Amino acid sequence: MGSVYYDRVQALRGLMRERGIDIYLILSSDPHICEYRLDYWKTRDWLSGFTGSMGHVLITHDEAYLWADGRYWIQAEKELEGSGIALQKLSVKNTMTAWLSKHKGKVIATDGRVLPLSLLKELQESVGEVQTHQALIDEIWLENRPAIPKDRIFEHPIEFALLSAKEKIAKIREAMQELQATHHLLSSLEDVAWVTNLRGGDIAYNPVFLSYMLIGLDEAILFVDESKMSNEIKENLLQNGIKIRGYDEVCQVLSTLQTEALLIDPTRTTTAILDCLPQGTKIIEEINPSVHLKARKNNGEIAHIQEAMRQDGVALCKFFSWLKREYRLRDISELDVAERLTELRAERPLYRGDSFNTIAGFNANGALPHYSATPESFAYIKGDGFLLVDSGGQYLNGTTDITRTAPIGTISEEQKRDYTLVLKSHIAISSIAFPEGIAMPLLDTITRVPMWKEGLDYQHGTGHGVGYFLNVHEGPQVLSYFAKPEEKTRAYAGMVISIEPGIYRKWQWGVRLENLVVLKNRGDGFLVFENLTLCPFELDCIVLDLLTQEEKAWLNAYHQQVLNSLSPLLQDDPEALSWLEERTRQV
Amino acid sequence: MGSVYYDRVQALRGLMRERGIDIYLILSSDPHICEYRLDYWKTRDWLSGFTGSMGHVLITHDEAYLWADGRYWIQAEKELEGSGIALQKLSVKNTMTAWLSKHKGKVIATDGRVLPLSLLKELQESVGEVQTHQALIDEIWLENRPAIPKDRIFEHPIEFALLSAKEKIAKIREAMQELQATHHLLSSLEDVAWVTNLRGGDIAYNPVFLSYMLIGLDEAILFVDESKMSNEIKENLLQNGIKIRGYDEVCQVLSTLQTEALLIDPTRTTTAILDCLPQGTKIIEEINPSVHLKARKNNGEIAHIQEAMRQDGVALCKFFSWLKREYRLRDISELDVAERLTELRAERPLYRGDSFNTIAGFNANGALPHYSATPESFAYIKGDGFLLVDSGGQYLNGTTDITRTAPIGTISEEQKRDYTLVLKSHIAISSIAFPEGIAMPLLDTITRVPMWKEGLDYQHGTGHGVGYFLNVHEGPQVLSYFAKPEEKTRAYAGMVISIEPGIYRKWQWGVRLENLVVLKNRGDGFLVFENLTLCPFELDCIVLDLLTQEEKAWLNAYHQQVLNSLSPLLQDDPEALSWLEERTRQV
Repeated sequence: MGSVYYDRVQALRGLMRERGIDIYLILSSDPHICEYRLDYWKTRDWLSGFTGSMGHVLITHDEAYLWADGRYWIQAEKELEGSGIALQKLSVKNTMTAWLSKHKGKVIATDGRVLPLSLLKELQESVGEVQTHQALIDEIWLENRPAIPKDRIFEHPIEFALLSAKEKIAKIREAMQELQATHHLLSSLEDVAWVTNLRGGDIAYNPVFLSYMLIGLDEAILFVDESKMSNEIKENLLQNGIKIRGYDEVCQVLSTLQTEALLIDPTRTTTAILDCLPQGTKIIEEINPSVHLKARKNNGEIAHIQEAMRQDGVALCKFFSWLKREYRLRDISELDVAERLTELRAERPLYRGDSFNTIAGFNANGALPHYSATPESFAYIKGDGFLLVDSGGQYLNGTTDITRTAPIGTISEEQKRDYTLVLKSHIAISSIAFPEGIAMPLLDTITRVPMWKEGLDYQHGTGHGVGYFLNVHEGPQVLSYFAKPEEKTRAYAGMVISIEPGIYRKWQWGVRLENLVVLKNRGDGFLVFENLTLCPFELDCIVLDLLTQEEKAWLNAYHQQVLNSLSPLLQDDPEALSWLEERTRQV
Repeated sequence: MGSVYYDRVQALRGLMRERGIDIYLILSSDPHICEYRLDYWKTRDWLSGFTGSMGHVLITHDEAYLWADGRYWIQAEKELEGSGIALQKLSVKNTMTAWLSKHKGKVIATDGRVLPLSLLKELQESVGEVQTHQALIDEIWLENRPAIPKDRIFEHPIEFALLSAKEKIAKIREAMQELQATHHLLSSLEDVAWVTNLRGGDIAYNPVFLSYMLIGLDEAILFVDESKMSNEIKENLLQNGIKIRGYDEVCQVLSTLQTEALLIDPTRTTTAILDCLPQGTKIIEEINPSVHLKARKNNGEIAHIQEAMRQDGVALCKFFSWLKREYRLRDISELDVAERLTELRAERPLYRGDSFNTIAGFNANGALPHYSATPESFAYIKGDGFLLVDSGGQYLNGTTDITRTAPIGTISEEQKRDYTLVLKSHIAISSIAFPEGIAMPLLDTITRVPMWKEGLDYQHGTGHGVGYFLNVHEGPQVLSYFAKPEEKTRAYAGMVISIEPGIYRKWQWGVRLENLVVLKNRGDGFLVFENLTLCPFELDCIVLDLLTQEEKAWLNAYHQQVLNSLSPLLQDDPEALSWLEERTRQV
């Protein structure tokens, strides 16, 4: 009782009483419905103390709940302590909307500036009316609220972007015309970044910038803080047919919009933005055309990504050979691991940052799929066991994401068996062919056959789409049987996706092996996965007797490819080269 | 122009004009939404000439369409000739409701007696109002309309049914109380047959009888033509707490129903039946609880099914050894094959009929997955090639369904490769373990991996659920990636399902290999498939070099099981026994 969060909830209840609100929802989203929220918009965290990436909070006058998924149950119970907010374990049946559907007739309110249209509809279906103009947290979070960032915007050089903004807009207009839309509003930052060939630093790990974009059949407007851009960039935008207006002017421009039909993505557009539109504006709800366009990489982009992978692979060889030497000599922590890896990536020419917060989990920490070490809580790499390292870089020529599990000291037979099983699952899915256009969630079970045989499984998807010098999580493709096999999840050539099965032994160790692959046409209506990631597996952790001939052939071919690609770049680093050569020998 | 069907459509248009109807729908369903319709209800066939199992017809004053799926396109174009009705190729995008959604404001009518509630809702969503009390075909089909059948009803002896009707009703009442229903109406004939432990002969291949059942928390009423039942059966029903009313009295009884909440399955209940209810009756829409109850066979039922499989296996060995001898001696047709197989099954003690119309397709005919020979069109088994035989029996102790592909004359290398690939797919799915409760449609892709590698696939699901002396197609389980992985498709122990991959070479040959399996708990939260079907594969058609060690081990274990199970029952038939022994040798 009596934590700062408890006091905040009480303050909120005071306001709710004044306004006659029975139930208030604090959503874990921001105005652009980003995977990583701006600190300014972490209202849910500020009120509840819970810091997870997802989880809505609901406050009534005598109850308070957070709905969080399985990843966060342990963390949430700890963080919510003293707040008076109880954890609701999110499941298909236990959702916030299901709870609300039992409380019809109550006055419900939330902040429409962070409420996507899709969620509003879900709420309306289950409870009826929802007030969306109650920004109550703004009225009580008066001190120490973080500022809106103003990072510089820079160009994604055309050498890497390959298509100009003008050409991209032309493609979007084609899709708009097919959908019979006269205007299209983009709220999602990665789509704006892709269309404009601009990048920024407002959000951690995702090289995007705060903005909206309105595309008509004849004109296009970028809503952005002009002070972040050079004159050269502004001029370039104009030359590509893009006008510039202030970030805060979007609502005003929308309010005067004479449109026949506005195309928006209901999962990425807030109700507050739509409230700006003149009464009666026709809305077409569809996934943004740019999501499909940027998901299918062209051959030029793929060639760039392959080069980024070589550079990333060099950094990884240097890192793992450094680790192998250093952990025997001195105390290396999980934090040191992450830091060293970032340093080595930063030496690569086109590196611009990490693509997410490195997961370096030793033994029991590696058994938590979403672990990250903090200065308050981390482990040292000592004794025997597995170090799981999941990391990635942002390069001008591509975004990387790789997981390897390194042996520390002596590895037990059980650990080797786990490593081998994860590798078998990795190979099982990597080596299939599949019909073009199949819904990718349907393929995930193929990965799991070797593990299921042994009574093992993992509670996360096998793979996610990956952007091109953009977000490391990018749709619409998804290789996860937790996702619905919808139309938008269909497989097409050029898509980049991760393959990352794992085994997690609670309190003991975790093994995950992740490569990125690109979908390639085989020429007969079938697609295959072509490897992009270049970094060897650990032969000493593999029980060769558990591999079939086909699996050994896959492993040998992969290692040959890694050796051929990386060894020319490691001639000046004999330690890393010999680390590589040892691991890529044929078996 | 000027076929009898054209005249019938014109007569219908005359009536439509009189009633002011713009669009009239003739549905391919009956009052119980059965897979096999009564002849009396084949109004769609009578009007259009099209005889396929599925396909709605839509008539306007100047247009007429049939929506049929890919199985029926060739057949439909032939059968519709001269009717003035055009084929619409049914797809996700081209549906009757999609067509209707472009014709809002028109007066649309149909016969509510064969319109399931789920389809009415779909129609209402896409077009608005639909008149459901226009039984126009009744007014023009005045001659030679088939009678409603009156086949005798018989008991499914408790020795095989194992649970009494009273016990089954008690389980249904438990489910009703969970769903907060006070009454439950069953329209689906297989559910009524299962609950009452009665069987009949009104519908081909499905041992069911025309009926409805109304279950309250205290009483239960079976609506059936009493003249079909013996006094003993009637008494037995009463002892199980089931009252009897006439089949035609269901509407009257429903009209006086004092219920708080009536549970129905919207996909199996017609709007005409629901119109009988007093205004304002609360409807709970759910899959019938009996669907779930009868899908999970208990250990006693599984033991019975295993015995039925032995008997079926004996008939099959006798059949295939007969075939192997006879086709060399004289002209055997596809029709002879079906007839002989039925004769041999009929010799088995508990046989009560076939479970579907035997598919015996030689060479090109085998390449049509839903082929059936007719006296007007069939082939002789001569020369070289494959004979595909898909057949099954109804036994008091189980329902069988098996496909084998037999070599005729000399088999080419390409044919052997196809046979081997189908077998590899069959083994791939048969030998997995998988988490209890997984949605079974997600498992289908595992089957297809060996075929996809070679650029092959098949355009039907891998497997369907199977009843217990009931319908050979039974839900809710389904092993097909064409089905949605919904809640109701979850896998549980005791479910019986078919595994039937195939390769179809248009105009050349077809290979399909089908076994039935039962889902068994492995004891660690995972399920496995346990084989039920007992009949060898054709070793001479298998390229052993294409099998892995694991696949050979599976094949040898299966053949050993078949040999051990069947050879004791074939001691009096040396020809069949030696046919069996030759095919079950270890490789």
